[in-house]
Amino acid sequence: MQSVIRVDLGPQSYDITIASGGLDELGTQIGALNLGKKVLVVSNQMIFRHYGEKAIASLQKAGFEVASHILPVGEQYKTLTGLQRIYNSALEHRLERSSTIIALGGGVVGDMAGFAAATWLRGINVVQVPTSLLAMVDASIGGKTGVNHPQGKNLIGAFHQPRLVLIDPEVLKTLPPRELRAGMAEVIKYGVIWDAELFAQLEKCKRLDQMRYFPADLLPEILSKSCQAKADVVSKDEKESGLRAILNYGHTIGHAIESVTGYKVVNHGEGVAIGMVAASGLAVELGMWDSECDRRQLALIQKAGLPIKLPSGLDIEEILETLQTDKKVQDSKVRFILPTQIGVVTITDRVTADVIRLVLGRMG
Amino acid sequence: MQSVIRVDLGPQSYDITIASGGLDELGTQIGALNLGKKVLVVSNQMIFRHYGEKAIASLQKAGFEVASHILPVGEQYKTLTGLQRIYNSALEHRLERSSTIIALGGGVVGDMAGFAAATWLRGINVVQVPTSLLAMVDASIGGKTGVNHPQGKNLIGAFHQPRLVLIDPEVLKTLPPRELRAGMAEVIKYGVIWDAELFAQLEKCKRLDQMRYFPADLLPEILSKSCQAKADVVSKDEKESGLRAILNYGHTIGHAIESVTGYKVVNHGEGVAIGMVAASGLAVELGMWDSECDRRQLALIQKAGLPIKLPSGLDIEEILETLQTDKKVQDSKVRFILPTQIGVVTITDRVTADVIRLVLGRMG
Repeated sequence: MQSVIRVDLGPQSYDITIASGGLDELGTQIGALNLGKKVLVVSNQMIFRHYGEKAIASLQKAGFEVASHILPVGEQYKTLTGLQRIYNSALEHRLERSSTIIALGGGVVGDMAGFAAATWLRGINVVQVPTSLLAMVDASIGGKTGVNHPQGKNLIGAFHQPRLVLIDPEVLKTLPPRELRAGMAEVIKYGVIWDAELFAQLEKCKRLDQMRYFPADLLPEILSKSCQAKADVVSKDEKESGLRAILNYGHTIGHAIESVTGYKVVNHGEGVAIGMVAASGLAVELGMWDSECDRRQLALIQKAGLPIKLPSGLDIEEILETLQTDKKVQDSKVRFILPTQIGVVTITDRVTADVIRLVLGRMG
Repeated sequence: MQSVIRVDLGPQSYDITIASGGLDELGTQIGALNLGKKVLVVSNQMIFRHYGEKAIASLQKAGFEVASHILPVGEQYKTLTGLQRIYNSALEHRLERSSTIIALGGGVVGDMAGFAAATWLRGINVVQVPTSLLAMVDASIGGKTGVNHPQGKNLIGAFHQPRLVLIDPEVLKTLPPRELRAGMAEVIKYGVIWDAELFAQLEKCKRLDQMRYFPADLLPEILSKSCQAKADVVSKDEKESGLRAILNYGHTIGHAIESVTGYKVVNHGEGVAIGMVAASGLAVELGMWDSECDRRQLALIQKAGLPIKLPSGLDIEEILETLQTDKKVQDSKVRFILPTQIGVVTITDRVTADVIRLVLGRMG
């Protein structure tokens, strides 16, 4: 399998290359972009142990001068302090404006490395090499970068488009099952917000929680359809002034849950799964979508082994309070992305605190 | 006096409004831009004492919900830690994506407030209200924002264009004389790199070190010609991929001096003045510009009461080492902006370490 999807953003356009064994071609792929000779590979301890050697060998073979910066594993290190350490490496290795940071890892690595690239010397190149399903279908595409504020996720960040996204599905073989399931949350999201055909395809599968249960053609289809959906939306609205907000389906309440539980109880995909269940419930309450669709989405989320209930002991009022710090707040009103039919969502600020209390109250 | 200069950057275009008493119109000027109702005024203790009340009154009168964040005075606070505190204020006051940060102050305030706006919620509005001559003619225009790294100036930053630059020359009345002189360094720079007429005008003045010696029409001319020069260059090259680098005339060695002396001995303008003397000396050594022009530039810099010698005790080898971390380094070669005639400069990487040693050695 090999496919190339173009993200069309004028002078900032770039390719998403999906290729089995693509990691061995990292050097030649970046070489073809005519960037500077210095690269800094940013990765985490676990990913680097698996794939660091392969990535660096490929880069050196293509003539790059390679340095690396290894992050500890975990969302809790996605902070200004972690960022400062990447800056120190950038300085130590004398990165120049023509240099490239290569993000080899999942969403945390991609966000931090991307934000470091966005802000070092007021912006250097970044290439995303996502190693988790979630990063492949979502985080690595579209240029959103950033770190967390102690009081909210991704509050500090920038839009900074990569020069290339290189996806090698082979690396998913070492992905822990819980991480695969987290990625499936975003895949299901694309089915609900954009691609009814993808949704139907997922419905046909018996299980979505482990790769070994996937039909042979499912993974290529999941990757290309999800990346295409993301590329379509981002190409139409780079900086989230309109359409792009639909990608946050499930994320509004999802982020709040992650934040209130200190990023320790649910991972991002699990938060999104619970958030999609909640958003679907809100849409039913508002009479925007029928309970049969709600049931079908719920079934998919369960089949992917994802949570559909709130973490135990969660304070719903704390969730409501946290929603007020959401980036999508406008004139103090929280804007929700709610589904109207499979493949279509809409944006609304008509959701009252009482309806949120009602729906979340049922999800305890 | 009132003039409006347009910075032409497509959808990111904006006006520089120069108007005596303009601070009283801050609210109506921003109101005309149709941004959100929440604003955060970022200023420093000294400036806020002089102009905070006036600015806030004007904003409130125009219907804005106003909060403020006061920075300590000084370049030494232009750090990630200082930035973190602005983020905390942004969170506390619940800034939204449609909100605006207003930078009321000199270059440090403008850079920090601008970078906070560039990176809070991945980018909110910023309006620059420069209160120093240096910020008026240079820092507030063109979207360069950032903070210092312990080992180098402005290494961390982003391009983020303001929605408006509002210049009220009245505020210069409270500007300390040393700060006025610092701004004159940038004004002289525009004469050398872009505007021979401005250079000639400055040559006609007896003294340039204090406003009370200025001919009546000089200040309006200085402001509009300098802002026009900056707007011309930035409009042609927003992100410093080519032409814009000429604005760094005098800054390469200037930055290095500031950095090596811990930002405590010379201010930015003084660094630039010394840097221009050095660049001019390099250009003479390379046979690119004649010693008569060198002498004329030196005379202007002296007339503005600016330093023309290196700070005492400076280690030239340390300067050379620091140059290697300059943002303009490409393939490990430092790129210098050197003059060829009054009003024209060129970019070169032909300057060897030995020539730098020679020229700086004479400036001790």
